[in-house]
Amino acid sequence: MDKLRVIVDAMGGDYAPEEIVKGCIEAVNLKTGFDIELIGIEDEIRKVLKRQDYPNDRIFVTHAPQVITNKDKPTEAIKHKKDSSMVIGLKKIKENKGHVFISAGSTGALLAGTLLIAGRIPGIVRPALAPVVPSLSGGAMIIDAGMNTNCRPINYVQFAVMGSIYMQQMYNIKNPRVGLVNVGAEEEKGNKVLKEAFSLLNKCDINFVGNIEGHDIAEGVVDVAVCDGFTGNAMLKMMEGTGKYLFHHIKRIYNSNLFSKLSALLVRAHLKKLKDSVDPEIAGGTPILGVSGLVYKCHGNSRSNAIRNTILNACNLTKSVFIGKIQEKFSAMEVKIDA
Amino acid sequence: MDKLRVIVDAMGGDYAPEEIVKGCIEAVNLKTGFDIELIGIEDEIRKVLKRQDYPNDRIFVTHAPQVITNKDKPTEAIKHKKDSSMVIGLKKIKENKGHVFISAGSTGALLAGTLLIAGRIPGIVRPALAPVVPSLSGGAMIIDAGMNTNCRPINYVQFAVMGSIYMQQMYNIKNPRVGLVNVGAEEEKGNKVLKEAFSLLNKCDINFVGNIEGHDIAEGVVDVAVCDGFTGNAMLKMMEGTGKYLFHHIKRIYNSNLFSKLSALLVRAHLKKLKDSVDPEIAGGTPILGVSGLVYKCHGNSRSNAIRNTILNACNLTKSVFIGKIQEKFSAMEVKIDA
Repeated sequence: MDKLRVIVDAMGGDYAPEEIVKGCIEAVNLKTGFDIELIGIEDEIRKVLKRQDYPNDRIFVTHAPQVITNKDKPTEAIKHKKDSSMVIGLKKIKENKGHVFISAGSTGALLAGTLLIAGRIPGIVRPALAPVVPSLSGGAMIIDAGMNTNCRPINYVQFAVMGSIYMQQMYNIKNPRVGLVNVGAEEEKGNKVLKEAFSLLNKCDINFVGNIEGHDIAEGVVDVAVCDGFTGNAMLKMMEGTGKYLFHHIKRIYNSNLFSKLSALLVRAHLKKLKDSVDPEIAGGTPILGVSGLVYKCHGNSRSNAIRNTILNACNLTKSVFIGKIQEKFSAMEVKIDA
Repeated sequence: MDKLRVIVDAMGGDYAPEEIVKGCIEAVNLKTGFDIELIGIEDEIRKVLKRQDYPNDRIFVTHAPQVITNKDKPTEAIKHKKDSSMVIGLKKIKENKGHVFISAGSTGALLAGTLLIAGRIPGIVRPALAPVVPSLSGGAMIIDAGMNTNCRPINYVQFAVMGSIYMQQMYNIKNPRVGLVNVGAEEEKGNKVLKEAFSLLNKCDINFVGNIEGHDIAEGVVDVAVCDGFTGNAMLKMMEGTGKYLFHHIKRIYNSNLFSKLSALLVRAHLKKLKDSVDPEIAGGTPILGVSGLVYKCHGNSRSNAIRNTILNACNLTKSVFIGKIQEKFSAMEVKIDA
């Protein structure tokens, strides 16, 4: 398969399939070089497609009669709803019938599915949810941000290496700075697991800058922030909430008099862009690293713009480096860690 | 002792003693009803005092020749530097010679000192660092935010109860909403410890609203967010970094043209107030709850305004309810938990 194929779960998310399908249409209308396979209940998908203009040699539909919902228990859903868009989509990734899989559906099911169906890249102990958040240096990855609550030192090491490779390929950062999230910056901080992780990270073939604190992430001190999934998820959500709080008040402040209201109009587009950057509902999808194939999780509340941004983002990565090269490096990681 | 006495570590922090002393002077010049005992190297303190105008029947100086620095190992420093401002100050709290102790010095030493010298309120297993962060409902406490990295279910319960009482007394919130920080909101989420904590919290005599995610804190969904110290510290620092990131870009956006620059001048004071609210260097001190006496930790970079704000804040609490009442409720907590 030489053309880039993006597989999209049309049924996952609160605004599916309408907003998911619209996002796909927006993406193909904006850029070339890839096509999209939408998986889900065909009738519902085609209802939306019919109403839009798009190059119809670039969007295909595969029928999937079952739907995994947020109420389903993740592992059971993956095992029993074999005709769901999520399971069919992940199978295609496993069978190399697609390069990227994108879903806004149940996070638990997607994570379970990546492990059970798509499978890990050889050598990777545990995949990780790896969002890239805005920072003063352009963007910083938090890895893990939700998959693994209890981590062993080897997990931290693998998160660091995967994150480093991703940021290198995606953002052209020569030598991504990697930090270990800890309470305070001194070397002897943290519990036993973190101390051991620190020691291993020091020996790794990466640009390890040492312990960091939460504020170092948005302040651009690192390109990759390594932590367990519980901490990462809490930090990610904290950034989201802080953004909402600040913009609520900024809006209120600027609406307080006519002059500033008018000036706000001038810079409105820029402010909106800034606000959207810390809003996961809009910013775009989160990659799951360590899986055989690119899998992106979009926020459940994703509208068409988030889906579109995720597709275009994923295409950047796959275009700039063939996915084979990434898999090659990931496989080579096992050698690096032993060294 | 009927007048409120605030004991201040004059030697702790990057800008000590100058900014610490200044902060005390600002506080007594702004409000009445309390006096301040500054502990530290007397000569250095008096040098600063001499240059200022203040009611000199309200600021006293106690000499302490030793200083605990950030390089000292916390527990050893507390045990061996018995003539340091921090140890002397905490002893005075223990001996009821002061109502409040405030320090911007080594966090590790202050935490160790509260446990070894000031002592816990009877029944409390572990004290907690309990910052109140800004939120859309006025303010939300994160407890624990740094003292205890590995917590057992009983710790979460005690954090919840202490936080609830504090928010009640300090902010006049009738029935503070308490949430347990978790990955996702469903009841069965989280590891074994969190599930057990959830179950115990449900039986407590508090307004427990269930599991919450990081964004619920700044969004004002709860008044108290309960978590282990590692997660709490990471979230707190993440808010700080997000604030810095957003305000950096907001400033840049508003400086991009003359009209918006002018309008920014109009709302400048409001914006600064908002920016300061998420900046711990300015916002003020963090209470340590569960200690016999009120102890506040100020950020190491605190300047006079942060010290002043902490003093005034602490006075609000002690004024509105005599500290004895708080201790009474804390002591009664042991009964509540067993119920």
